[in-house]
Amino acid sequence: SLLICFYSTDLLPAKNGEEPTIQFLLEMVDILTTYVKKTFDRSTKVLDFHHPHQLLEGMEGFNLELSDQPESLEQILVDCRDTLKYGVRTGHPRFFNQLSSGLDIIGLAGEWLTSTANTNMFTYEIAPVFVLMEQLTLKKMREMIGWPNGEGDGIFSPGGAISNMYSVMIARYKYYPEVKTKGMSAAPRLVLFTSEHSHYSIKKAGAALGFGSENVILLSTDERGRVIPADLEAKIIDAKQKGYVPLFVNATAGSTVYGAFDPINEIADICEKYNLWLHVDGAWGGGLLMSRKHRHKLNGVERANSVTWNPHKMMGVPLQCSAILVREKGILAGCNSMCAGYLFQPDKQYDVNYDTGDKAIQCGRHVDIFKFWLMWKAKGTIGFEQHIDRCLDLSQYLYNKIKNREGYQMVFDGVPQHTNVCFWYIPPSLRDMPDGEERREKLHRVAPKIKAMMMESGTTMVGYQPQGKNVNFFRMVVSNLAATQSDIDFLIDEIERLGRDL
Amino acid sequence: SLLICFYSTDLLPAKNGEEPTIQFLLEMVDILTTYVKKTFDRSTKVLDFHHPHQLLEGMEGFNLELSDQPESLEQILVDCRDTLKYGVRTGHPRFFNQLSSGLDIIGLAGEWLTSTANTNMFTYEIAPVFVLMEQLTLKKMREMIGWPNGEGDGIFSPGGAISNMYSVMIARYKYYPEVKTKGMSAAPRLVLFTSEHSHYSIKKAGAALGFGSENVILLSTDERGRVIPADLEAKIIDAKQKGYVPLFVNATAGSTVYGAFDPINEIADICEKYNLWLHVDGAWGGGLLMSRKHRHKLNGVERANSVTWNPHKMMGVPLQCSAILVREKGILAGCNSMCAGYLFQPDKQYDVNYDTGDKAIQCGRHVDIFKFWLMWKAKGTIGFEQHIDRCLDLSQYLYNKIKNREGYQMVFDGVPQHTNVCFWYIPPSLRDMPDGEERREKLHRVAPKIKAMMMESGTTMVGYQPQGKNVNFFRMVVSNLAATQSDIDFLIDEIERLGRDL
Repeated sequence: SLLICFYSTDLLPAKNGEEPTIQFLLEMVDILTTYVKKTFDRSTKVLDFHHPHQLLEGMEGFNLELSDQPESLEQILVDCRDTLKYGVRTGHPRFFNQLSSGLDIIGLAGEWLTSTANTNMFTYEIAPVFVLMEQLTLKKMREMIGWPNGEGDGIFSPGGAISNMYSVMIARYKYYPEVKTKGMSAAPRLVLFTSEHSHYSIKKAGAALGFGSENVILLSTDERGRVIPADLEAKIIDAKQKGYVPLFVNATAGSTVYGAFDPINEIADICEKYNLWLHVDGAWGGGLLMSRKHRHKLNGVERANSVTWNPHKMMGVPLQCSAILVREKGILAGCNSMCAGYLFQPDKQYDVNYDTGDKAIQCGRHVDIFKFWLMWKAKGTIGFEQHIDRCLDLSQYLYNKIKNREGYQMVFDGVPQHTNVCFWYIPPSLRDMPDGEERREKLHRVAPKIKAMMMESGTTMVGYQPQGKNVNFFRMVVSNLAATQSDIDFLIDEIERLGRDL
Repeated sequence: SLLICFYSTDLLPAKNGEEPTIQFLLEMVDILTTYVKKTFDRSTKVLDFHHPHQLLEGMEGFNLELSDQPESLEQILVDCRDTLKYGVRTGHPRFFNQLSSGLDIIGLAGEWLTSTANTNMFTYEIAPVFVLMEQLTLKKMREMIGWPNGEGDGIFSPGGAISNMYSVMIARYKYYPEVKTKGMSAAPRLVLFTSEHSHYSIKKAGAALGFGSENVILLSTDERGRVIPADLEAKIIDAKQKGYVPLFVNATAGSTVYGAFDPINEIADICEKYNLWLHVDGAWGGGLLMSRKHRHKLNGVERANSVTWNPHKMMGVPLQCSAILVREKGILAGCNSMCAGYLFQPDKQYDVNYDTGDKAIQCGRHVDIFKFWLMWKAKGTIGFEQHIDRCLDLSQYLYNKIKNREGYQMVFDGVPQHTNVCFWYIPPSLRDMPDGEERREKLHRVAPKIKAMMMESGTTMVGYQPQGKNVNFFRMVVSNLAATQSDIDFLIDEIERLGRDL
């Protein structure tokens, strides 16, 4: 290629840089489209695993070290090919490892445009179209939550953990606005409530924001991982008796491991009774609001004060795309604004209500909206609905396949509420062993061993973890439109192939 | 185009989806490369300004509203063209509005690859190459700071405000680790110190983390915006006498408006004397560490406990790319870890020290490292040095051009330390007016009026703001390699053309 003799300094804005620039970008696109095609090709591996020390030592000329001197553009393209070669194909039909998976072509094109536009969400001035897209999309999301006329507030944030952190911040601001200026000493000893199955970000927010992780009180759940409302009420009463002031309850809509939906209406009744902020963490389950068939699982969500909803999980939007939605208008700005004169001048020629930056805890903010807006345009609401319904159908297929199958044991009974299917694979050597500590210890080691072999062979990936008293089990999730029943069959075959001699 | 009859459901993973997928992506790339070429073309406008209500009403068929039904791929491409048409060309040689500007072709290609890989930084398992790139790059950055062997800790975060928030969190954890579990009531009344010219994110962090914004004490500066060390010491003593406990000092390396560098060594002496955490906010000025000529402006940075450094600002890396760097190893994990079993299993087959997710306040984390790593490969350290030196030379050219020019007044005397050049343009009608309230009020309205006209005509963009007692002035910054002396000349001509009759 001509690019052997070219360096980055030959690209635009260099004089005569147009030709090498276009050539370079098109060669890059060729690498990327080849990767896209392979991603959907089942004869390609999900990953080509290497240990950190192997990659650090350098794989066949792939050198990660940085240097004082530049590399040629040709070498840069080689580096890009290698980067993809040793990575993980998260869009592969047999990648089931994470809540976010899949490679949506429209979303991908949207991200390419976003990075080409390379702007910042803090003002209308430099992101007019994206700022309006964000407003319209947040309004649509609030309508789907069921808030009247889609009124309210919201912002896209860098992930569900930060969205959940926002919810705790604004709850505190609503009840104790003076904490913003005076600090936590201006408030009584506040406590937050969330399920023992909830995402760890609520606890992290408690630690970061100065509540303390011990003041995040964990609620008991039923055996399917749903909060027991009576336990919430008992713990509220107990906290009050001990002199604490309950502030905030998080209800999870789609828990990380079990995919459980907490009973929002019953929790909302208790929140109203005790005047507490109700947040719904729908990072994982929020997408079900798009489905007429499944949205009932979030019944009561319209009673929440705030909702986290990550389109980058169940709806297949590329990372990152997470929204925090708030019922009360203006409270995000009230909570976070510092009115920095150099960004948010009141004397601009346009309506500065469109400068949204001061609502955020960030200053600069990546454009996360465009890919999502573009996907919504391209699929329509009905396209997201089909995506959701299809993934849930596929999970039910898996559930039906293994619930009575020899060598499998479900972690909880009944049809899963979300796409999470949690199960143990019991190798033949353990099937006749009586329950007890020895069997538990052995079973605990089965999933990690199978997972390690899967990764070494690169054929598929699925998550595992312990939960409470339950030893390591597989947690299967489906959010990738590329997956079919044959891929589910493949996963089960693979587990049995790798696990039968353990 | 064939795509008129195609919809997103015809793309991969659909059967026979390969051909329309490649065609769609290539047509998208054609739109993007056309945009890239125009971005560097001075005969193209920087922006085509419209008010929010105009865009919301729909421009020549550009409809922002979302619908239940899908659009054809052809319409999606039209939407993408329109999105770019009504946006702002932040890479244009005459876009001077923001600290981040420019469109680096290598960085752009890196972002395209990142979105194609569509993975998450939380574990080595699903981002092996990116996790290692992050580690190596952070180490290089720590070496440039001057910490022995580049040892320490760090992470890429979604912007400088979050990086600064990390610094406050870890300072608190270092001195009062029990706050993590018990909350702020486990600590005495803590205060933080930062310059009155510093970025508002320090105050925002103080509010969010439960210190209270009033407990962020603002330090006086000299007339060039640099912290006066004696004022810091006096305010420390004063706070202690009032029963507060000083915890943290932020020194700014490159302030947002004046581009001032606080005297780090003198501040470090005081921090050592009183045993305080020293953070250096080098979000804007950190890039100067790459320049042998300019790095002396950060002398003493190696004495800091933590440093914020945003390659997406002065170094031209696409948004977002911000690092928080910490001298003490392991403290980020200590501060933030919650040990969630479903992500960070201790029984994986690889060295789980490479699972960095639990160090972060985020769970999912966008891959911000790759574009930066790729740019470093392509330019070498010397390429970044040339970038920095060139931008600073260009600012000095502007400074020399206007410092004695009729109709200009500098906001502070002397050669700027960074690329920030702050000045008033005085229209002829005000030049003979005696100083006083009337002139101040009139002058205050000049910059907004010129800026509004600039945006309407779309020829160039530059920021303005008041600062303390100074009425609205222009703040010119250069971080875009595309800008030349002729563009600086153009800006000045444009200010005079638009402002002469005010």
